[in-house]
Amino acid sequence: MGSETLVLTHDTMVEGVHFLAGQDLHDVAWRLVATNMSDLAAKGARPVGVLLSYQLGGDDAAFLRGLGAALTRYGAALLGGDTVSAAGAKTVGLTAIGLATHLPVPPRSGAKPGDEVWITGPVGAALAGFEALQSGEGDSEAYRRPVALVAEGQLLAPLVSAIMDVSDGLLLDARRMAMVSGVTLTLDRSAIPIAMPEDRRDEALRWGDDYQLLFTLPGQVTPPLPAFRIGTVMEPGPEPLLLDGAAPSGKLGYEHR
Amino acid sequence: MGSETLVLTHDTMVEGVHFLAGQDLHDVAWRLVATNMSDLAAKGARPVGVLLSYQLGGDDAAFLRGLGAALTRYGAALLGGDTVSAAGAKTVGLTAIGLATHLPVPPRSGAKPGDEVWITGPVGAALAGFEALQSGEGDSEAYRRPVALVAEGQLLAPLVSAIMDVSDGLLLDARRMAMVSGVTLTLDRSAIPIAMPEDRRDEALRWGDDYQLLFTLPGQVTPPLPAFRIGTVMEPGPEPLLLDGAAPSGKLGYEHR
Repeated sequence: MGSETLVLTHDTMVEGVHFLAGQDLHDVAWRLVATNMSDLAAKGARPVGVLLSYQLGGDDAAFLRGLGAALTRYGAALLGGDTVSAAGAKTVGLTAIGLATHLPVPPRSGAKPGDEVWITGPVGAALAGFEALQSGEGDSEAYRRPVALVAEGQLLAPLVSAIMDVSDGLLLDARRMAMVSGVTLTLDRSAIPIAMPEDRRDEALRWGDDYQLLFTLPGQVTPPLPAFRIGTVMEPGPEPLLLDGAAPSGKLGYEHR
Repeated sequence: MGSETLVLTHDTMVEGVHFLAGQDLHDVAWRLVATNMSDLAAKGARPVGVLLSYQLGGDDAAFLRGLGAALTRYGAALLGGDTVSAAGAKTVGLTAIGLATHLPVPPRSGAKPGDEVWITGPVGAALAGFEALQSGEGDSEAYRRPVALVAEGQLLAPLVSAIMDVSDGLLLDARRMAMVSGVTLTLDRSAIPIAMPEDRRDEALRWGDDYQLLFTLPGQVTPPLPAFRIGTVMEPGPEPLLLDGAAPSGKLGYEHR
């Protein structure tokens, strides 16, 4: 668009599917903004504004407060949108518009053999928070108020060969990065930072919503921020993802439809 | 954005509210695109692309075909979006991105005393089409496959003092234009072209979905396309909208929530 490169994304969330029935709408708004901002972060984009699709009902004022707080947090403006009245599960959606800060916009498909695999922080915090919210005991903040790593994405964009946000589970998202890059990613299970007890490591690696950034860097390149080296990129083999040398079993994450 | 001015819009449609339960999803997709493109048309914007929010279910293939056909019609690309699985009324949304072709982007608030009020074509065709679709008799095309006047909007943008698309009913939308412009619009009831029998004129003036463009031009300026002069702009009075000299009674159109 003229002299600028736009980054656009849209996420829709449905009550009972993407958030709990009866969940505080302040938190729902916060998560809706965060998930979209995380998509921008993974492209190194600076948030500009959003358009909201909002099904009225419940504590609309709480939603608006959460939306305002989250947008302020990311410096994004509410540019417009649409409200609808409908029965049934509450559906909310957000389109976010950002400006690329580095060209080319970093892809998720650029991982190359010899690169190293990094992550910005632990996975599993949102799972722990989700359980706390359901049980009413413990700290649910990480699930209710996730933070998109917008500044981190802008720092990483000029350096990475591939980058994406971990929204559906580390193993699933890492496998996706490997497949679109045409390589095999091999991860060192014990090197992956988790925010859960060790006996729940397998679950932490399969839960999304933490919005950490997963990225690959050429060997010898050190990330310009705190990050964890969790594996390496290899030539393509029969399995796109290896965990301690073997294809991980079972469900790898949250499969959208 | 750099050297370009973007026009952004979002519309959400819910089954049973904005389209009929069980309606052909090809037509639903077409209308979803048209309603968004009409928002761009009213700003004189050239369509660039869209992001789709889509709740899966029913004949998804038909929806996709309709979406593809409509986007091709308007020269807009499907840039991305999100799909969700959920129970309940099908909800679909579209964000459309366009480029302004004339600056300043024409407002709906610029009608001035002395201007004349114009419309691009008849109202009521979508109402007739809606009734045909419900009864299974007659031509429902105008309701199922409305056409957004994108080229017309670009032609009008440099000339108009105010412009908007008629999506909720001519009387309601004309009243809105008058209010945001701080003027009174006086319409000549018999000059308004309708696509219904004369005895249903009052309904035709109150039904939306035709996506005609309503605009005001300074006196002596002739529109560069076929259009109908339906009234004049006056100094603000106690009523923002007059029809044959009196405030129209009853419901003026479709009031969104």
